[in-house]
Amino acid sequence: MPPSDRIRDHAGQGATTVAAHRARRRLRADQARQLADLLRHQVLAGGFPDGALPHETVLAADYRASRNTVRQALDLLRAEGLVDRLPGVGTVVVARKYPHGLDRLMGLAETLREHGTVTNEVRTMGPAPAPAPVAERLRVPAGTDVLYIERLRRLNGLPLSLDLTYIPLDIGTALLGADLENTDVFRLLESITGQRLGHAEITLEAVNADAHSAAVLEAPRGAAVLMLERLTHLADGRPVDLEFIRFRGDRITMSGLLHRSL
Amino acid sequence: MPPSDRIRDHAGQGATTVAAHRARRRLRADQARQLADLLRHQVLAGGFPDGALPHETVLAADYRASRNTVRQALDLLRAEGLVDRLPGVGTVVVARKYPHGLDRLMGLAETLREHGTVTNEVRTMGPAPAPAPVAERLRVPAGTDVLYIERLRRLNGLPLSLDLTYIPLDIGTALLGADLENTDVFRLLESITGQRLGHAEITLEAVNADAHSAAVLEAPRGAAVLMLERLTHLADGRPVDLEFIRFRGDRITMSGLLHRSL
Repeated sequence: MPPSDRIRDHAGQGATTVAAHRARRRLRADQARQLADLLRHQVLAGGFPDGALPHETVLAADYRASRNTVRQALDLLRAEGLVDRLPGVGTVVVARKYPHGLDRLMGLAETLREHGTVTNEVRTMGPAPAPAPVAERLRVPAGTDVLYIERLRRLNGLPLSLDLTYIPLDIGTALLGADLENTDVFRLLESITGQRLGHAEITLEAVNADAHSAAVLEAPRGAAVLMLERLTHLADGRPVDLEFIRFRGDRITMSGLLHRSL
Repeated sequence: MPPSDRIRDHAGQGATTVAAHRARRRLRADQARQLADLLRHQVLAGGFPDGALPHETVLAADYRASRNTVRQALDLLRAEGLVDRLPGVGTVVVARKYPHGLDRLMGLAETLREHGTVTNEVRTMGPAPAPAPVAERLRVPAGTDVLYIERLRRLNGLPLSLDLTYIPLDIGTALLGADLENTDVFRLLESITGQRLGHAEITLEAVNADAHSAAVLEAPRGAAVLMLERLTHLADGRPVDLEFIRFRGDRITMSGLLHRSL
């Protein structure tokens, strides 16, 4: 017997106790989350091509859920900024998340090419002494100057990520005159060194944006941020690019394929 | 000239305007974020083996930063729940993030084996009609019963993730009597089907936890959650396991290796 029937029978027997109330509320919250996850997938996969979600009663029938559960699920997606309710129209998709590949090492403009134009606002750029952990990872002596770049990256004008980048100065110097506004650092690194990039070690985390990062990204304070730390190596194995990237959680997804055996 | 000197010269000329004040504040926030990113890496990489961070003055010297910037960077890490300040002791590491591999398809207990014991609290389990998007991805007719499981997963007793799982019923039925409290679904799927798992399509996002998910995960409302959607296939290609996993952002990192060419 599915748990919803269990609860219903329980209540049907007149045992409308505080515990039963609580159980029902918890159950509805669970079901709302469950439904929200399915709808989120549909929204992100472009499952509502005209941008409008079906009416609540249709959703309720399609997903065998109560109207209350549907409403609560839509509220969850609204809180995430994915959909909005328009009077007289219903629930519409308002945010778009862009897929960033997890299978291949690519620059942002490369990976999002089909979705629009990436532009970069260079907030800071210049040589700075490498702190010990940066120096170690870039394999330069601690305190050596490295090129530090801070960029706010936009897709079709909307803030997408805030990138902090460290590059060894022998390569970095050539970047100083480059068109960083319109070109991925990856492409510039390959053209400067005459070498392809090889691999990158990446770490992904979800963090709440601090007030300042949120302001730069034009996101609410505390907004969930997908944080990517990435150390990129040239094809010959030399580490050349250490980046700390804060993606707006509501604008990006990372997708890839995992295999059971390597 | 690095931007800090530029600002300093500017102020030194007596141009202590509102704009200069703002620029300094922005600069300090930028520098604090930059330092916080480096310290976060050190914390996560176990760079402070005794659990205590060096004194602020030492950090200031090591990272050529002002005391104010160091304090602000530590505040950011404190807000993330990574460190805390103890009177008379200084700043100590209080949270630990566990590395989840992004290179190979593994169950949670498998991937975290060296970090402790994973236990699963089964919150809901039973057959339920598959909503259309679930049915489509599991390649069963819409409305067919599938096994639905909801688990709260803990590492060494601490809540780590909330997992919603859908499994075709021909395989799922055998799971009903299995020891789900102590065993990864992946391992059970392989022993039930007598087949190895093959690959999984994954999508990662950062979202703010809704109130109910946060309560279940014992995290603050709005806490950043690393959301993993994963469709796992058997070696023969059949999709057998659709999961929506909410990892507490402060307890997990995902790490892997990307290559420039496939």
